Amino acid sequence: MKRIDSIKNEQVKTWKKLHTRKGREKAGKFLVEGFHLVEEALKAPIHVEAVIMTEETVLPSAWSLSDHEIILVSEQVMKDISETETPQGIAAVCDLPAPPIVDVLEGQYLLIDRVQDPGNVGTMIRTADSAGMTGVVMGEGCVDIFNSKVIRASQGSIFHLPVIKGNLLTWIERFKEESIPVFGTALEGASSYSAIEPQRKFALIMGNEGEGVSEDLLAVCDQNIYIPIFGQAESLNVAVAAGILLYYLRG
Amino acid sequence: MKRIDSIKNEQVKTWKKLHTRKGREKAGKFLVEGFHLVEEALKAPIHVEAVIMTEETVLPSAWSLSDHEIILVSEQVMKDISETETPQGIAAVCDLPAPPIVDVLEGQYLLIDRVQDPGNVGTMIRTADSAGMTGVVMGEGCVDIFNSKVIRASQGSIFHLPVIKGNLLTWIERFKEESIPVFGTALEGASSYSAIEPQRKFALIMGNEGEGVSEDLLAVCDQNIYIPIFGQAESLNVAVAAGILLYYLRG
Repeated sequence: MKRIDSIKNEQVKTWKKLHTRKGREKAGKFLVEGFHLVEEALKAPIHVEAVIMTEETVLPSAWSLSDHEIILVSEQVMKDISETETPQGIAAVCDLPAPPIVDVLEGQYLLIDRVQDPGNVGTMIRTADSAGMTGVVMGEGCVDIFNSKVIRASQGSIFHLPVIKGNLLTWIERFKEESIPVFGTALEGASSYSAIEPQRKFALIMGNEGEGVSEDLLAVCDQNIYIPIFGQAESLNVAVAAGILLYYLRG
Repeated sequence: MKRIDSIKNEQVKTWKKLHTRKGREKAGKFLVEGFHLVEEALKAPIHVEAVIMTEETVLPSAWSLSDHEIILVSEQVMKDISETETPQGIAAVCDLPAPPIVDVLEGQYLLIDRVQDPGNVGTMIRTADSAGMTGVVMGEGCVDIFNSKVIRASQGSIFHLPVIKGNLLTWIERFKEESIPVFGTALEGASSYSAIEPQRKFALIMGNEGEGVSEDLLAVCDQNIYIPIFGQAESLNVAVAAGILLYYLRG
Protein backbone atom coordinates (compact mmCIF):
# COMPACT_ATOMS: atom_id res chain seq x y z
CA MET A 1 0.00 0.00 0.00
CA LYS A 2 1.31 3.39 -1.03
CA ARG A 3 2.07 5.72 1.83
CA ILE A 4 2.62 9.49 1.77
CA ASP A 5 3.77 11.39 4.84
CA SER A 6 5.07 14.67 3.48
CA ILE A 7 3.00 17.55 2.18
CA LYS A 8 5.88 18.21 -0.21
CA ASN A 9 5.24 14.95 -2.04
CA GLU A 10 4.46 15.49 -5.75
CA GLN A 11 1.24 13.47 -5.51
CA VAL A 12 -0.05 15.78 -2.78
CA LYS A 13 0.64 18.75 -5.03
CA THR A 14 -1.36 17.17 -7.87
CA TRP A 15 -4.29 16.54 -5.51
CA LYS A 16 -4.27 20.14 -4.32
CA LYS A 17 -4.48 21.33 -7.92
CA LEU A 18 -7.91 19.67 -8.03
CA HIS A 19 -9.20 22.45 -5.75
CA THR A 20 -9.53 24.74 -8.77
CA ARG A 21 -11.73 24.32 -11.83
CA LYS A 22 -8.72 24.77 -14.08
CA GLY A 23 -6.78 22.09 -12.21
CA ARG A 24 -9.71 19.67 -12.37
CA GLU A 25 -10.23 20.19 -16.09
CA LYS A 26 -6.52 19.80 -16.87
CA ALA A 27 -6.23 16.59 -14.85
CA GLY A 28 -9.69 15.29 -15.78
CA LYS A 29 -10.20 14.45 -12.11
CA PHE A 30 -11.90 15.78 -8.96
CA LEU A 31 -11.70 15.17 -5.22
CA VAL A 32 -14.44 14.19 -2.79
CA GLU A 33 -14.08 14.23 0.98
CA GLY A 34 -15.80 12.65 3.96
CA PHE A 35 -17.43 9.25 4.51
CA HIS A 36 -20.81 10.07 3.02
CA LEU A 37 -19.45 11.58 -0.20
CA VAL A 38 -16.75 8.92 -0.74
CA GLU A 39 -19.43 6.26 -0.30
CA GLU A 40 -21.67 8.02 -2.83
CA ALA A 41 -18.75 8.22 -5.27
CA LEU A 42 -18.01 4.49 -4.83
CA LYS A 43 -21.67 3.65 -5.58
CA ALA A 44 -21.88 6.02 -8.54
CA PRO A 45 -21.15 5.01 -12.14
CA ILE A 46 -17.88 6.94 -12.13
CA HIS A 47 -14.28 5.78 -11.93
CA VAL A 48 -12.76 6.21 -8.45
CA GLU A 49 -9.02 6.23 -9.04
CA ALA A 50 -7.86 6.10 -5.45
CA VAL A 51 -9.17 6.24 -1.89
CA ILE A 52 -7.04 8.35 0.44
CA MET A 53 -7.12 7.67 4.18
CA THR A 54 -5.05 7.95 7.35
CA GLU A 55 -3.93 5.15 9.64
CA GLU A 56 -6.60 6.17 12.14
CA THR A 57 -9.45 6.00 9.61
CA VAL A 58 -11.93 3.23 10.35
CA LEU A 59 -13.54 2.08 7.11
CA PRO A 60 -17.23 1.08 7.21
CA SER A 61 -17.37 -2.72 6.94
CA ALA A 62 -19.85 -2.50 4.04
CA TRP A 63 -17.30 -0.82 1.79
CA SER A 64 -15.63 -3.01 -0.81
CA LEU A 65 -12.37 -1.42 -1.88
CA SER A 66 -10.72 -4.40 -3.54
CA ASP A 67 -10.92 -2.72 -6.96
CA HIS A 68 -9.51 0.59 -5.78
CA GLU A 69 -6.04 1.81 -4.98
CA ILE A 70 -5.79 2.83 -1.33
CA ILE A 71 -3.25 5.47 -0.34
CA LEU A 72 -2.34 5.98 3.30
CA VAL A 73 -1.42 9.54 4.22
CA SER A 74 -0.32 11.32 7.40
CA GLU A 75 -2.80 13.50 9.32
CA GLN A 76 -0.81 16.47 8.08
CA VAL A 77 -1.23 15.50 4.43
CA MET A 78 -4.96 14.86 4.96
CA LYS A 79 -5.32 18.31 6.47
CA ASP A 80 -3.36 19.82 3.62
CA ILE A 81 -5.51 18.36 0.86
CA SER A 82 -8.77 18.88 2.75
CA GLU A 83 -11.03 21.86 2.18
CA THR A 84 -13.06 21.34 5.35
CA GLU A 85 -12.28 22.59 8.83
CA THR A 86 -12.49 19.14 10.43
CA PRO A 87 -11.40 16.53 7.88
CA GLN A 88 -12.96 13.09 8.44
CA GLY A 89 -9.77 11.30 7.39
CA ILE A 90 -11.15 10.02 4.10
CA ALA A 91 -11.11 11.33 0.53
CA ALA A 92 -11.22 9.96 -3.00
CA VAL A 93 -9.80 10.97 -6.36
CA CYS A 94 -12.37 10.43 -9.12
CA ASP A 95 -12.36 10.83 -12.89
CA LEU A 96 -14.54 13.67 -14.12
CA PRO A 97 -17.53 11.88 -15.69
CA ALA A 98 -18.37 12.30 -19.37
CA PRO A 99 -21.09 14.95 -19.84
CA PRO A 100 -24.52 13.28 -19.49
CA ILE A 101 -26.32 12.81 -22.81
CA VAL A 102 -30.03 13.55 -22.88
CA ASP A 103 -31.54 12.20 -26.11
CA VAL A 104 -35.22 12.24 -25.35
CA LEU A 105 -36.37 15.24 -23.42
CA GLU A 106 -39.15 14.49 -20.98
CA GLY A 107 -39.93 14.90 -17.33
CA GLN A 108 -39.08 17.75 -14.99
CA TYR A 109 -35.97 19.90 -15.04
CA LEU A 110 -34.32 22.59 -12.94
CA LEU A 111 -32.30 25.15 -14.91
CA ILE A 112 -29.76 27.31 -13.07
CA ASP A 113 -28.79 30.69 -14.49
CA ARG A 114 -25.51 32.24 -13.25
CA VAL A 115 -25.78 31.17 -9.60
CA GLN A 116 -22.35 31.79 -8.12
CA ASP A 117 -22.54 30.61 -4.53
CA PRO A 118 -21.43 26.97 -4.32
CA GLY A 119 -23.63 26.34 -1.26
CA ASN A 120 -26.69 27.57 -3.15
CA VAL A 121 -25.90 25.50 -6.26
CA GLY A 122 -25.17 22.35 -4.24
CA THR A 123 -28.34 22.80 -2.18
CA MET A 124 -30.39 23.30 -5.36
CA ILE A 125 -29.02 20.05 -6.86
CA ARG A 126 -29.87 18.24 -3.58
CA THR A 127 -33.36 19.78 -3.66
CA ALA A 128 -33.88 18.84 -7.34
CA ASP A 129 -32.87 15.27 -6.46
CA SER A 130 -35.28 15.21 -3.49
CA ALA A 131 -38.11 16.55 -5.61
CA GLY A 132 -37.49 13.77 -8.14
CA MET A 133 -36.35 15.99 -11.00
CA THR A 134 -35.21 14.24 -14.20
CA GLY A 135 -32.14 16.49 -14.47
CA VAL A 136 -30.48 19.81 -13.78
CA VAL A 137 -29.08 22.13 -16.45
CA MET A 138 -26.36 24.54 -15.33
CA GLY A 139 -26.05 27.56 -17.61
CA GLU A 140 -22.84 29.38 -18.40
CA GLY A 141 -21.59 31.58 -15.56
CA CYS A 142 -22.53 29.15 -12.77
CA VAL A 143 -19.98 27.94 -10.24
CA ASP A 144 -18.35 24.64 -11.34
CA ILE A 145 -20.30 21.46 -10.43
CA PHE A 146 -17.13 19.74 -9.19
CA ASN A 147 -16.18 22.55 -6.79
CA SER A 148 -15.82 20.82 -3.41
CA LYS A 149 -18.36 23.11 -1.72
CA VAL A 150 -20.94 22.33 -4.42
CA ILE A 151 -20.37 18.59 -3.98
CA ARG A 152 -20.59 18.94 -0.18
CA ALA A 153 -23.78 21.03 -0.22
CA SER A 154 -25.30 18.61 -2.74
CA GLN A 155 -24.72 15.83 -0.15
CA GLY A 156 -23.86 13.50 -3.01
CA SER A 157 -26.88 14.35 -5.18
CA ILE A 158 -24.53 15.33 -8.04
CA PHE A 159 -24.08 11.55 -8.39
CA HIS A 160 -27.84 10.83 -8.45
CA LEU A 161 -29.20 12.76 -11.40
CA PRO A 162 -27.80 14.15 -14.65
CA VAL A 163 -26.30 17.59 -14.07
CA ILE A 164 -25.66 19.03 -17.51
CA LYS A 165 -23.64 22.12 -18.44
CA GLY A 166 -25.18 23.97 -21.33
CA ASN A 167 -26.43 27.12 -22.97
CA LEU A 168 -29.80 27.87 -21.37
CA LEU A 169 -31.26 29.59 -24.45
CA THR A 170 -30.56 26.44 -26.49
CA TRP A 171 -32.08 24.28 -23.77
CA ILE A 172 -35.22 26.41 -23.52
CA GLU A 173 -35.68 25.97 -27.28
CA ARG A 174 -35.33 22.21 -26.92
CA PHE A 175 -37.94 22.14 -24.13
CA LYS A 176 -40.33 24.24 -26.17
CA GLU A 177 -39.91 21.97 -29.21
CA GLU A 178 -41.02 19.07 -27.00
CA SER A 179 -43.99 21.09 -25.69
CA ILE A 180 -42.51 21.14 -22.18
CA PRO A 181 -43.56 24.40 -20.50
CA VAL A 182 -40.66 26.59 -19.36
CA PHE A 183 -41.18 28.75 -16.26
CA GLY A 184 -38.87 31.66 -15.49
CA THR A 185 -38.76 33.30 -12.07
CA ALA A 186 -39.13 37.09 -12.01
CA LEU A 187 -40.63 39.80 -9.85
CA GLU A 188 -42.14 41.86 -12.66
CA GLY A 189 -44.52 40.73 -15.38
CA ALA A 190 -44.94 37.44 -13.54
CA SER A 191 -47.79 35.50 -11.91
CA SER A 192 -47.84 34.12 -8.41
CA TYR A 193 -46.75 30.47 -8.59
CA SER A 194 -49.98 29.38 -6.93
CA ALA A 195 -51.91 30.57 -9.99
CA ILE A 196 -50.20 27.79 -12.00
CA GLU A 197 -51.32 24.17 -11.84
CA PRO A 198 -48.77 21.46 -10.99
CA GLN A 199 -47.25 20.05 -14.20
CA ARG A 200 -46.30 16.54 -15.31
CA LYS A 201 -43.49 18.02 -17.44
CA PHE A 202 -41.79 21.35 -16.90
CA ALA A 203 -38.53 23.25 -16.81
CA LEU A 204 -38.05 25.84 -14.04
CA ILE A 205 -35.29 28.47 -14.22
CA MET A 206 -33.75 29.91 -11.04
CA GLY A 207 -31.42 32.90 -11.40
CA ASN A 208 -28.45 34.73 -9.94
CA GLU A 209 -28.71 35.72 -6.24
CA GLY A 210 -28.71 39.46 -6.89
CA GLU A 211 -29.94 39.84 -10.45
CA GLY A 212 -32.36 36.97 -10.90
CA VAL A 213 -32.88 35.26 -14.26
CA SER A 214 -31.42 37.12 -17.31
CA GLU A 215 -33.86 39.22 -19.32
CA ASP A 216 -33.09 37.34 -22.54
CA LEU A 217 -34.13 34.06 -20.91
CA LEU A 218 -37.26 35.52 -19.28
CA ALA A 219 -38.31 36.86 -22.70
CA VAL A 220 -38.55 33.35 -24.17
CA CYS A 221 -40.15 31.52 -21.23
CA ASP A 222 -43.73 30.31 -21.56
CA GLN A 223 -44.63 31.97 -18.29
CA ASN A 224 -42.78 33.79 -15.55
CA ILE A 225 -43.71 33.21 -11.91
CA TYR A 226 -42.84 34.58 -8.49
CA ILE A 227 -43.24 33.62 -4.85
CA PRO A 228 -45.19 36.27 -2.90
CA ILE A 229 -43.42 37.87 0.06
CA PHE A 230 -45.92 38.23 2.91
CA GLY A 231 -43.56 39.87 5.44
CA GLN A 232 -40.85 42.50 5.21
CA ALA A 233 -38.05 40.42 3.69
CA GLU A 234 -36.88 41.59 0.29
CA SER A 235 -36.54 38.13 -1.17
CA LEU A 236 -36.05 34.45 -0.43
CA ASN A 237 -32.77 32.58 -0.62
CA VAL A 238 -32.54 31.08 -4.14
CA ALA A 239 -32.27 27.47 -2.92
CA VAL A 240 -35.26 27.90 -0.58
CA ALA A 241 -37.23 29.43 -3.47
CA ALA A 242 -36.25 26.50 -5.71
CA GLY A 243 -37.54 24.09 -3.05
CA ILE A 244 -40.91 25.82 -2.74
CA LEU A 245 -41.40 25.96 -6.52
CA LEU A 246 -40.14 22.46 -7.39
CA TYR A 247 -42.32 20.80 -4.74
CA TYR A 248 -45.31 22.88 -5.77
CA LEU A 249 -44.92 22.36 -9.52
CA ARG A 250 -44.32 18.61 -9.33
CA GLY A 251 -47.59 18.29 -7.36
CA MET B 1 -15.54 62.92 14.84
CA LYS B 2 -13.71 60.12 16.59
CA ARG B 3 -11.00 58.45 14.55
CA ILE B 4 -9.26 55.11 15.15
CA ASP B 5 -6.29 54.01 13.06
CA SER B 6 -4.66 51.28 15.11
CA ILE B 7 -5.94 47.75 15.63
CA LYS B 8 -4.36 47.94 19.08
CA ASN B 9 -6.84 50.59 20.17
CA GLU B 10 -8.92 49.50 23.20
CA GLN B 11 -12.18 50.29 21.40
CA VAL B 12 -11.25 47.92 18.58
CA LYS B 13 -10.62 45.20 21.15
CA THR B 14 -14.08 45.72 22.69
CA TRP B 15 -15.70 45.49 19.24
CA LYS B 16 -13.91 42.23 18.47
CA LYS B 17 -15.25 40.75 21.69
CA LEU B 18 -18.71 41.08 20.15
CA HIS B 19 -17.81 38.24 17.77
CA THR B 20 -18.60 35.72 20.52
CA ARG B 21 -21.91 35.09 22.26
CA LYS B 22 -20.24 35.54 25.64
CA GLY B 23 -18.76 38.87 24.59
CA ARG B 24 -22.10 40.08 23.27
CA GLU B 25 -23.98 39.10 26.40
CA LYS B 26 -21.38 40.69 28.67
CA ALA B 27 -21.38 43.97 26.74
CA GLY B 28 -25.11 43.89 25.94
CA LYS B 29 -24.22 44.81 22.36
CA PHE B 30 -23.78 43.25 18.93
CA LEU B 31 -22.19 44.20 15.61
CA VAL B 32 -23.74 44.37 12.15
CA GLU B 33 -21.79 44.77 8.93
CA GLY B 34 -22.44 45.92 5.40
CA PHE B 35 -24.74 48.55 3.90
CA HIS B 36 -27.90 46.47 3.82
CA LEU B 37 -27.68 45.28 7.43
CA VAL B 38 -26.60 48.65 8.88
CA GLU B 39 -29.56 50.23 7.08
CA GLU B 40 -31.90 47.59 8.51
CA ALA B 41 -30.49 48.22 12.00
CA LEU B 42 -31.00 52.00 11.62
CA LYS B 43 -34.63 51.45 10.60
CA ALA B 44 -35.29 48.91 13.37
CA PRO B 45 -36.59 49.80 16.84
CA ILE B 46 -33.20 49.17 18.42
CA HIS B 47 -30.54 51.52 19.70
CA VAL B 48 -27.63 51.93 17.29
CA GLU B 49 -24.77 53.17 19.46
CA ALA B 50 -22.28 53.99 16.74
CA VAL B 51 -21.76 53.70 13.01
CA ILE B 52 -18.23 52.68 12.01
CA MET B 53 -16.92 53.62 8.59
CA THR B 54 -13.71 54.34 6.68
CA GLU B 55 -12.77 57.54 4.88
CA GLU B 56 -13.52 55.86 1.56
CA THR B 57 -17.03 54.80 2.57
CA VAL B 58 -19.74 56.59 0.58
CA LEU B 59 -22.89 56.81 2.68
CA PRO B 60 -26.25 56.48 0.89
CA SER B 61 -27.83 59.95 0.74
CA ALA B 62 -31.06 58.63 2.28
CA TRP B 63 -29.34 57.77 5.57
CA SER B 64 -29.89 60.16 8.42
CA LEU B 65 -27.09 59.73 10.93
CA SER B 66 -27.50 62.97 12.89
CA ASP B 67 -28.56 61.04 16.02
CA HIS B 68 -25.71 58.58 15.86
CA GLU B 69 -22.07 58.68 16.76
CA ILE B 70 -19.91 58.13 13.68
CA ILE B 71 -16.46 56.64 14.14
CA LEU B 72 -13.91 56.79 11.32
CA VAL B 73 -11.50 53.88 11.20
CA SER B 74 -8.60 52.86 8.98
CA GLU B 75 -9.04 50.12 6.37
CA GLN B 76 -6.90 47.95 8.59
CA VAL B 77 -9.20 48.39 11.60
CA MET B 78 -12.28 47.73 9.44
CA LYS B 79 -10.70 44.52 8.19
CA ASP B 80 -9.78 43.55 11.74
CA ILE B 81 -13.30 43.90 13.14
CA SER B 82 -14.98 42.44 10.06
CA GLU B 83 -16.07 38.82 9.83
CA THR B 84 -16.55 38.87 6.06
CA GLU B 85 -13.95 38.26 3.39
CA THR B 86 -14.61 41.53 1.58
CA PRO B 87 -15.73 44.15 4.13
CA GLN B 88 -17.97 46.86 2.66
CA GLY B 89 -16.42 49.56 4.85
CA ILE B 90 -19.46 50.01 7.08
CA ALA B 91 -20.53 48.50 10.40
CA ALA B 92 -22.65 49.43 13.41
CA VAL B 93 -22.59 48.70 17.12
CA CYS B 94 -26.11 48.07 18.42
CA ASP B 95 -27.61 47.38 21.83
CA LEU B 96 -28.98 43.87 22.20
CA PRO B 97 -32.75 44.36 22.17
CA ALA B 98 -34.91 43.36 25.13
CA PRO B 99 -36.45 39.91 24.58
CA PRO B 100 -39.72 40.30 22.62
CA ILE B 101 -42.83 39.83 24.77
CA VAL B 102 -45.67 37.84 23.28
CA ASP B 103 -48.79 38.28 25.40
CA VAL B 104 -51.50 37.05 23.14
CA LEU B 105 -50.57 34.02 21.15
CA GLU B 106 -52.08 33.94 17.69
CA GLY B 107 -50.99 33.60 14.12
CA GLN B 108 -48.28 31.44 12.61
CA TYR B 109 -44.96 30.50 14.19
CA LEU B 110 -41.75 28.76 13.25
CA LEU B 111 -40.03 26.90 16.12
CA ILE B 112 -36.37 25.92 15.75
CA ASP B 113 -35.00 22.97 17.72
CA ARG B 114 -31.21 22.77 18.17
CA VAL B 115 -30.21 23.98 14.71
CA GLN B 116 -26.51 24.72 14.90
CA ASP B 117 -25.52 26.05 11.53
CA PRO B 118 -25.76 29.86 11.51
CA GLY B 119 -26.46 29.94 7.78
CA ASN B 120 -29.40 27.57 8.22
CA VAL B 121 -30.84 29.51 11.19
CA GLY B 122 -30.45 32.88 9.44
CA THR B 123 -32.00 31.52 6.24
CA MET B 124 -34.93 30.08 8.25
CA ILE B 125 -35.58 33.47 9.90
CA ARG B 126 -35.47 35.13 6.46
CA THR B 127 -37.87 32.48 5.13
CA ALA B 128 -40.24 32.86 8.11
CA ASP B 129 -40.27 36.63 7.48
CA SER B 130 -40.98 36.09 3.74
CA ALA B 131 -43.80 33.67 4.55
CA GLY B 132 -45.35 36.28 6.84
CA MET B 133 -44.89 34.36 10.08
CA THR B 134 -45.94 36.12 13.31
CA GLY B 135 -42.73 35.08 15.07
CA VAL B 136 -39.89 32.60 15.45
CA VAL B 137 -39.08 30.71 18.65
CA MET B 138 -35.49 29.50 19.03
CA GLY B 139 -35.18 26.59 21.46
CA GLU B 140 -32.21 25.96 23.71
CA GLY B 141 -29.19 24.56 21.89
CA CYS B 142 -29.60 26.72 18.80
CA VAL B 143 -26.82 28.97 17.53
CA ASP B 144 -27.09 32.53 18.94
CA ILE B 145 -29.41 34.89 17.02
CA PHE B 146 -26.83 37.72 17.14
CA ASN B 147 -24.04 35.61 15.66
CA SER B 148 -22.85 37.64 12.65
CA LYS B 149 -23.42 34.76 10.23
CA VAL B 150 -27.00 34.36 11.44
CA ILE B 151 -27.65 38.10 10.98
CA ARG B 152 -26.07 38.01 7.53
CA ALA B 153 -27.99 34.93 6.34
CA SER B 154 -31.21 36.45 7.72
CA GLN B 155 -30.56 39.46 5.42
CA GLY B 156 -31.91 41.70 8.17
CA SER B 157 -35.06 39.67 8.86
CA ILE B 158 -34.01 39.34 12.53
CA PHE B 159 -35.12 43.00 12.73
CA HIS B 160 -38.51 42.35 11.09
CA LEU B 161 -40.27 39.84 13.30
CA PRO B 162 -40.04 38.74 16.93
CA VAL B 163 -37.33 36.11 17.35
CA ILE B 164 -37.78 34.70 20.84
CA LYS B 165 -35.44 32.44 22.80
CA GLY B 166 -37.33 29.94 24.88
CA ASN B 167 -37.98 26.42 26.06
CA LEU B 168 -39.82 24.69 23.23
CA LEU B 169 -41.78 22.31 25.49
CA THR B 170 -43.19 25.32 27.36
CA TRP B 171 -44.02 27.04 24.09
CA ILE B 172 -45.75 23.97 22.66
CA GLU B 173 -47.95 23.90 25.79
CA ARG B 174 -48.82 27.57 25.31
CA PHE B 175 -49.78 26.97 21.68
CA LYS B 176 -51.92 23.99 22.63
CA GLU B 177 -53.71 26.00 25.34
CA GLU B 178 -54.67 28.50 22.65
CA SER B 179 -55.83 25.69 20.35
CA ILE B 180 -53.07 26.47 17.85
CA PRO B 181 -52.06 23.21 16.15
CA VAL B 182 -48.41 22.26 16.57
CA PHE B 183 -46.74 20.31 13.75
CA GLY B 184 -43.47 18.48 14.31
CA THR B 185 -41.32 17.26 11.43
CA ALA B 186 -40.26 13.61 11.53
CA LEU B 187 -39.62 10.73 9.16
CA GLU B 188 -41.38 8.05 11.20
CA GLY B 189 -44.95 8.04 12.50
CA ALA B 190 -45.63 11.12 10.41
CA SER B 191 -47.97 12.07 7.55
CA SER B 192 -46.97 13.63 4.25
CA TYR B 193 -47.43 17.40 4.60
CA SER B 194 -49.74 17.43 1.60
CA ALA B 195 -52.27 15.39 3.61
CA ILE B 196 -52.70 18.42 5.92
CA GLU B 197 -54.82 21.43 4.97
CA PRO B 198 -53.27 24.91 5.10
CA GLN B 199 -53.92 26.49 8.53
CA ARG B 200 -54.84 30.01 9.64
CA LYS B 201 -52.91 29.42 12.89
CA PHE B 202 -50.11 26.96 13.43
CA ALA B 203 -46.69 26.33 14.93
CA LEU B 204 -44.19 24.32 12.88
CA ILE B 205 -41.06 22.81 14.46
CA MET B 206 -37.89 22.26 12.40
CA GLY B 207 -35.07 20.26 13.98
CA ASN B 208 -31.33 19.71 14.13
CA GLU B 209 -29.59 19.00 10.79
CA GLY B 210 -28.56 15.45 11.68
CA GLU B 211 -31.02 14.37 14.37
CA GLY B 212 -34.23 16.17 13.47
CA VAL B 213 -36.71 17.31 16.12
CA SER B 214 -36.17 15.82 19.64
CA GLU B 215 -38.33 12.84 20.55
CA ASP B 216 -39.77 14.60 23.60
CA LEU B 217 -41.05 17.43 21.43
CA LEU B 218 -42.43 15.12 18.73
CA ALA B 219 -44.33 13.22 21.44
CA VAL B 220 -46.41 16.28 22.38
CA CYS B 221 -47.08 17.69 18.88
CA ASP B 222 -50.62 17.54 17.53
CA GLN B 223 -49.37 15.96 14.34
CA ASN B 224 -45.99 15.12 12.81
CA ILE B 225 -45.39 15.64 9.13
CA TYR B 226 -42.69 14.94 6.54
CA ILE B 227 -41.77 16.02 3.03
CA PRO B 228 -41.62 13.03 0.66
CA ILE B 229 -38.30 12.39 -1.09
CA PHE B 230 -39.00 11.42 -4.71
CA GLY B 231 -35.37 10.93 -5.80
CA GLN B 232 -32.29 9.38 -4.22
CA ALA B 233 -31.36 12.17 -1.79
CA GLU B 234 -31.48 11.19 1.88
CA SER B 235 -33.04 14.43 3.04
CA LEU B 236 -33.59 18.10 2.28
CA ASN B 237 -31.60 20.98 3.73
CA VAL B 238 -33.46 22.16 6.86
CA ALA B 239 -33.97 25.73 5.59
CA VAL B 240 -35.28 24.49 2.23
CA ALA B 241 -37.65 22.12 4.07
CA ALA B 242 -38.83 25.02 6.28
CA GLY B 243 -39.58 27.06 3.14
CA ILE B 244 -41.63 24.28 1.51
CA LEU B 245 -43.65 23.66 4.70
CA LEU B 246 -44.20 27.29 5.73
CA TYR B 247 -45.41 28.31 2.28
CA TYR B 248 -47.62 25.22 2.05
CA LEU B 249 -49.13 25.54 5.55
CA ARG B 250 -49.85 29.26 5.32
CA GLY B 251 -51.79 28.56 2.08
